[in-house]
Amino acid sequence: MTLTAWVNGRFVPLEEATIHIEDRGFQFADGVYEVIACFGGRFLELEAHLDRLENSCEGIGISLLKSRPELIELIHDTYHRNPFDHAMIYIQATRGIAPRSHLLTQEVEPTLVITARELPSPSAEKLTHGASAITLPDIRWKRCDIKSIALLASVIGKQEAARQGVDEAFWLDDEGHILEGCATNCFAVINGELVTHPLDHHVLGGITRHLALKVAREHDITIVERPWRLDEPGLSECMMSSTTNAVVAVSNIDGVTIGNGAAGPISTNLRQWILDEFEAMKQ
Amino acid sequence: MTLTAWVNGRFVPLEEATIHIEDRGFQFADGVYEVIACFGGRFLELEAHLDRLENSCEGIGISLLKSRPELIELIHDTYHRNPFDHAMIYIQATRGIAPRSHLLTQEVEPTLVITARELPSPSAEKLTHGASAITLPDIRWKRCDIKSIALLASVIGKQEAARQGVDEAFWLDDEGHILEGCATNCFAVINGELVTHPLDHHVLGGITRHLALKVAREHDITIVERPWRLDEPGLSECMMSSTTNAVVAVSNIDGVTIGNGAAGPISTNLRQWILDEFEAMKQ
Repeated sequence: MTLTAWVNGRFVPLEEATIHIEDRGFQFADGVYEVIACFGGRFLELEAHLDRLENSCEGIGISLLKSRPELIELIHDTYHRNPFDHAMIYIQATRGIAPRSHLLTQEVEPTLVITARELPSPSAEKLTHGASAITLPDIRWKRCDIKSIALLASVIGKQEAARQGVDEAFWLDDEGHILEGCATNCFAVINGELVTHPLDHHVLGGITRHLALKVAREHDITIVERPWRLDEPGLSECMMSSTTNAVVAVSNIDGVTIGNGAAGPISTNLRQWILDEFEAMKQ
Repeated sequence: MTLTAWVNGRFVPLEEATIHIEDRGFQFADGVYEVIACFGGRFLELEAHLDRLENSCEGIGISLLKSRPELIELIHDTYHRNPFDHAMIYIQATRGIAPRSHLLTQEVEPTLVITARELPSPSAEKLTHGASAITLPDIRWKRCDIKSIALLASVIGKQEAARQGVDEAFWLDDEGHILEGCATNCFAVINGELVTHPLDHHVLGGITRHLALKVAREHDITIVERPWRLDEPGLSECMMSSTTNAVVAVSNIDGVTIGNGAAGPISTNLRQWILDEFEAMKQ
């Protein structure tokens, strides 16, 4: 399949899709993004993703100049030009193009890029045995609630995880609480309750995090949104959530086995319930 | 003058200078940069800038693939194609181009972009009366010693400064110490001594900061590198330094007048001594 991208007003072959070197996304990380899963042509939580995109834009003061229906049409168009059965739509908005200066003093049109690629899935091995992670002191900025493209800290975290042979790095605050991963939200099962860090400036309001809490609630699992630590008594499972992972158990953190070292019952159930939601959506 | 840029192996007209939308600089802020002043064809502290560029690359694990002499030749070439009397050379290196994923798993060539534009100068009014600033709680990441393109926090800071009608925003740590500005280092004169935050992960090792300390030392001004606050007794001047500003006095911070509300004697002298160094360099 020859991939096609939307770049500032037109569809172009992905391999020829370029932006100007003075785009503020390239020089200042002055932009925001979303990654949306699409199964058989149905978008997962599209409205929630677009709500968050608008909130991120507002958070850094970018006006998208596209109405919600226009954005939805563009996303559909991009998908139909790259119709993977399981697709991942990537939308990026930046403040636009201008001679380099921290402060933008002229009126410019924001940049809008939309691409589609195949949605990767976690390996069968990882689903059975769980993923692995390390913890790192949080070096990110203090507005992680904004889904910005200023992702260098997360890139560094992912590199360190790979160097240590694990899948993800979880950020720790100064008190040792697990905030979230480089590209995931994190959960623990502690004394049978599903625990995850509350939404504040240190974590992104993940769409899959929200979905996981929704299906857990529907299945009468008690949810507690509070800071939590790995060394808490009664901790039996850990898991991570993201658009590309849905929910995946994490069975080893910093070399220490969590629970019995395989995907635990609540992780496994949460994953299945979310996949069931995806399936129901495709009908 | 038609401006020319170096982009990944060739010179192109600036207006046609583009990079791929999957450049990691555009999607992850996965890159670093330098801004180098050039007066009449002489580069200011070129080796120091290239040392720092190499350190920044090493800090995030990018290999530039260019030797020091090759880089210097490219910088000279870029200048000679854009020969402003007072020029500002911008060099940006990113990890390269690859399908979007936090972790780069394939070998790619890093992206290298070099541009030149006219070096702006502070207005005469600002030089006489001093610049103005606000302070903001530091929301940046914790590796500000790396000159990365993950500059969104600084863009937001500059926007807030502009909204309040001032020139710069200074970042405060949790104890109220002034760390640095969005695009400047900061200094105070306290009881006649020149005080500036020591080099650590919260401040960039500014080339002009270094130059200011050098000329101050040569003129027997006592230098103290320590955290400092605006409300310290004996504080009589504040100033900021950067490649584009050299040294400029800051006479109003958060609406409070510093000293007598004009450029103080040490700020004025430091600026002049630095300009004298530039002049000497042009001979």
